[in-house]
Amino acid sequence: MIIARSAQELKDALETKTGSVGFVPTMGALHIGHRTLIDAARKGNDTVVVSIFVNPTQFLPGEDLSKYPRREEADFKICSLSGIDILFYPDVNAMYGDDEVRITAPDVRGFILEGASRPGHFDGVLTVVMKLFNIVRPTRAYFGKKDAQQLAMIIQMVNNFFMDVEIVPMETVRESDGLALSSRNVYLSPSERQEALKLSAALKSATKMVMQGNLSSSDIKTNMESILSPLDVEYVAIVNRAFESIEKVVLGNTIILVAARVGTTRLIDNVWM
Amino acid sequence: MIIARSAQELKDALETKTGSVGFVPTMGALHIGHRTLIDAARKGNDTVVVSIFVNPTQFLPGEDLSKYPRREEADFKICSLSGIDILFYPDVNAMYGDDEVRITAPDVRGFILEGASRPGHFDGVLTVVMKLFNIVRPTRAYFGKKDAQQLAMIIQMVNNFFMDVEIVPMETVRESDGLALSSRNVYLSPSERQEALKLSAALKSATKMVMQGNLSSSDIKTNMESILSPLDVEYVAIVNRAFESIEKVVLGNTIILVAARVGTTRLIDNVWM
Repeated sequence: MIIARSAQELKDALETKTGSVGFVPTMGALHIGHRTLIDAARKGNDTVVVSIFVNPTQFLPGEDLSKYPRREEADFKICSLSGIDILFYPDVNAMYGDDEVRITAPDVRGFILEGASRPGHFDGVLTVVMKLFNIVRPTRAYFGKKDAQQLAMIIQMVNNFFMDVEIVPMETVRESDGLALSSRNVYLSPSERQEALKLSAALKSATKMVMQGNLSSSDIKTNMESILSPLDVEYVAIVNRAFESIEKVVLGNTIILVAARVGTTRLIDNVWM
Repeated sequence: MIIARSAQELKDALETKTGSVGFVPTMGALHIGHRTLIDAARKGNDTVVVSIFVNPTQFLPGEDLSKYPRREEADFKICSLSGIDILFYPDVNAMYGDDEVRITAPDVRGFILEGASRPGHFDGVLTVVMKLFNIVRPTRAYFGKKDAQQLAMIIQMVNNFFMDVEIVPMETVRESDGLALSSRNVYLSPSERQEALKLSAALKSATKMVMQGNLSSSDIKTNMESILSPLDVEYVAIVNRAFESIEKVVLGNTIILVAARVGTTRLIDNVWM
């Protein structure tokens, strides 16, 4: 495994490789969810690049940038054991300068749900993803469906800017009790972790309602909100793949999403149907 | 000459070519200035692509988008006679969709001078240039120094986003009496055209002062303003290549700029030293 710490080092490392490049961008604190992305990248490509970069521009003032879990040694080991070819591990100065040109999320779709709760968050995500894509020039890039709106924004950016990369969405990985894997789960105390199960439980119940034939978004939301209570719920939403609110679930084109705080930790989860 | 009207058609046309690609993005109404860019692109590359696209997102409300000179037949003939390989001539729907991801100019450097006079203008320029670069994937792209700040913004975008293209700045082309060529010159009445010479005259006088050893920005500006009077001057500025104001001219790292209205026509000009 080659470790590249700048765009130039990454470029040099890639010059020794031929064929397709699979790319998994991460913020480190790798878990089984990331492993699933890496495994898919390895199966589908000749070369696998993983990036670890805690991107400051996607954190809002007061968010958890400084305490975001950093685990260099464990992450390097996971990457190495996963058989990746190149680890891109830049510091912030290798990625950003002063007073930069930036990417801005769409006025409407970028400022609902996560964009409403975290205004500016997607601007930072899209900016760093554009940078990373231009540095790595991947054939395919792998993203988890757990960050559903992020995934939709990235697909839109790729389309809007005629970018030559295939975005591969991957299923959310869960603990056996249903909790969606997240680097932020480490913030949860044991009792909070128990409370956090309400997110996946609400989504499971929503799925059951749909399977039983109730497609009404308002019925499903009401039921989910009662399950989530008394958590501090930021939103429960039912949207199509373009992230437009829909009144009735359409199988094959619906995502049901929830964001809630458990203690001080903000968690999101969703189900695609 | 192949005419491509969509990103896909352009891609198909480029697949028949090998070697380096020189790219000249334009808004049409081609003049000798554009010809100079095209000639340089032809000399330096195996394949030359010219785009003609009047980009709506770089015009502010109330600007001259609808009356911007459009001369399809003459432009096609100029392109064909210039020996270009591919003309990219998309309509707006081939370039933009609804509620898009956008590029935003830098907070500081993007909102001075042209950015102050035309807030949002550079966002539109950078957005379309990023799209065009991703569609054409040029080895080299050619821009006139007349749009000096635009050129600086584009170079910055290329650096900030690790884009794999060489930006080639080309000298401003002038009429024999000094007027910088511009597609907007057609708006000028004969008497306005005479008044417009004050821009190049002021720059010529500034150059003379510097050659005579007066490097004081404030002296040079005072002199320029007296020459420009009574035109409606938007700005006279003396900056370094990074577009930071400087108090003394430094040979090799100075641009002197002027923007003024002649009648209702807004003109810009500059000199690099």
